[in-house]
Amino acid sequence: MTEATLSDRLLAGDPRAIARAISLIEDESPSRVDLVRRIFARTGNAYLVGVTGPPGAGKSTLVDRLISEVRKSGRTVGVVAVDPTSPFSGGAILGDRVRMQAHAGDPDVFIRSMATRGNLGGLARATGEVAVVFDAAGKDIVLIETVGVGQDEVDIVRTADVSIVTIVPGSGDEIQALKAGIMEIADIFVVNKADREGADRTVSSIQAMLSLHSAADGEWRPPVIKTVATTGEGVAELLETIEKFRAHTATTQGSRRRARAEWRLRELIGQRFLSHVEETVLRAGEFEQMLDRIAARETDPYSVVDAIFQRAIR
Amino acid sequence: MTEATLSDRLLAGDPRAIARAISLIEDESPSRVDLVRRIFARTGNAYLVGVTGPPGAGKSTLVDRLISEVRKSGRTVGVVAVDPTSPFSGGAILGDRVRMQAHAGDPDVFIRSMATRGNLGGLARATGEVAVVFDAAGKDIVLIETVGVGQDEVDIVRTADVSIVTIVPGSGDEIQALKAGIMEIADIFVVNKADREGADRTVSSIQAMLSLHSAADGEWRPPVIKTVATTGEGVAELLETIEKFRAHTATTQGSRRRARAEWRLRELIGQRFLSHVEETVLRAGEFEQMLDRIAARETDPYSVVDAIFQRAIR
Repeated sequence: MTEATLSDRLLAGDPRAIARAISLIEDESPSRVDLVRRIFARTGNAYLVGVTGPPGAGKSTLVDRLISEVRKSGRTVGVVAVDPTSPFSGGAILGDRVRMQAHAGDPDVFIRSMATRGNLGGLARATGEVAVVFDAAGKDIVLIETVGVGQDEVDIVRTADVSIVTIVPGSGDEIQALKAGIMEIADIFVVNKADREGADRTVSSIQAMLSLHSAADGEWRPPVIKTVATTGEGVAELLETIEKFRAHTATTQGSRRRARAEWRLRELIGQRFLSHVEETVLRAGEFEQMLDRIAARETDPYSVVDAIFQRAIR
Repeated sequence: MTEATLSDRLLAGDPRAIARAISLIEDESPSRVDLVRRIFARTGNAYLVGVTGPPGAGKSTLVDRLISEVRKSGRTVGVVAVDPTSPFSGGAILGDRVRMQAHAGDPDVFIRSMATRGNLGGLARATGEVAVVFDAAGKDIVLIETVGVGQDEVDIVRTADVSIVTIVPGSGDEIQALKAGIMEIADIFVVNKADREGADRTVSSIQAMLSLHSAADGEWRPPVIKTVATTGEGVAELLETIEKFRAHTATTQGSRRRARAEWRLRELIGQRFLSHVEETVLRAGEFEQMLDRIAARETDPYSVVDAIFQRAIR
């Protein structure tokens, strides 16, 4: 498939083209750059929904239910689940295969797990590019689901149009979520597994925390929705709440998207320079020699960066 | 305090100089660069111990106990706890104040929480620089504790000389840890709160997972240590295991440190170029204009990066 054919087929919404495009992104193939260039003008229409929360909060099941709910309204869905790989399992765990089954045969749902790349920032960059692919392919809603509650995951979800934080009752998760810094990124809280004992107490304690933060007049106050993802209870209400948030932030959504674009542009600039340095500025083996000299304490990282700069910059 | 005075006092181990140096790093002050340059030749002696695990695994208490255990042998300790801030609490949560109390009055223990900077990679870079500061100040052991189990946290802990993954019994955490991709970075597993029901089952299930991964002859096989951090049970054994790992990897430690240096150098190169572009290459307001044009889909991020490159690169 040439790049021109791939982009044409992608813009036509062809699932095989979507799969191929995401593989290019996951493999960090240089040809993904041309692809993004070709399709970028046709993006900006999809609504990005980020879902995060501590491990075990039932995010995957919740996302599956949310897909079904979105499909009832006739809209199309792309899902990217950020799913670390492990050498113990030999690949993505609880991956696409199981998850696809519920929506198998529905050409308007595309679910893809994305393995971590192991390098800082790479995961977030790749997630952003996958969202661009879904957007270009005409998906109305893009769901971004992250496993884990670390800084990268917070950054990924924060750049979505709406950020949903999922919490399980009675696990002390609300406190742990606060510790992990995810409370403040939530536009909507979901207390999942709400049929468990202590659900109402968890809702109250989230609301109590939220009340510490004084909201300005007209400012969105994150609601707390109870769901039981395994039965689908509360998921319709969750989608309604997402729509309410979308309407409420219609005028400010642009600035959030702008922040996302800014963050992405910074990443790309740094990455591009690094490739340039390694491919063009440094001689073969020179990077290794520099590392040797740092290890021997003959120089320091900042001096090495200075030296590289002298040679690379106009 | 001038930079020369600061570095001299830091190399002499002055706690106030350590505090000042870490503040410079946390604030991303440009003068931290000169400081690191001045002290870098005097580093490489500290042993870096990374501790991670799901929220609620009792990492802070475990680290406190580990400090006491290390101190029994007369060695000095620096601790950096990666601790996200929250606008709800107005600062680091469960921060230094509470934690310092157990070691108050011991000049050979320095504990510092580090707030997240909100930008990708910044946290890991800052953590690495704090480790350099502790190292230069003569700390024998540097403990790096992360909150959360995301990609950034995994990256931070993986670059330590030894990586400890802490898990709580009966919480299904072992499965969640696997999902979060932290199983494969563990050199040592700790099942904390081992007085809880199900501790032995958790130990077995970790061992079962480990047995799926065939170790080569002479290769380190991660042991599973049971601890009760609140009483100190098992912590002496944990320290012994750390020492065993240190001895076992004495010949390979260099390559791990080299990987850390490489990763750090890449980060610095990207970051330095970004600063150069914003401060020197672009006119005032030009970055904003580029973002406007991307938002309007008049251009795409890759074309913008190309244009910047044409102007910046020799």
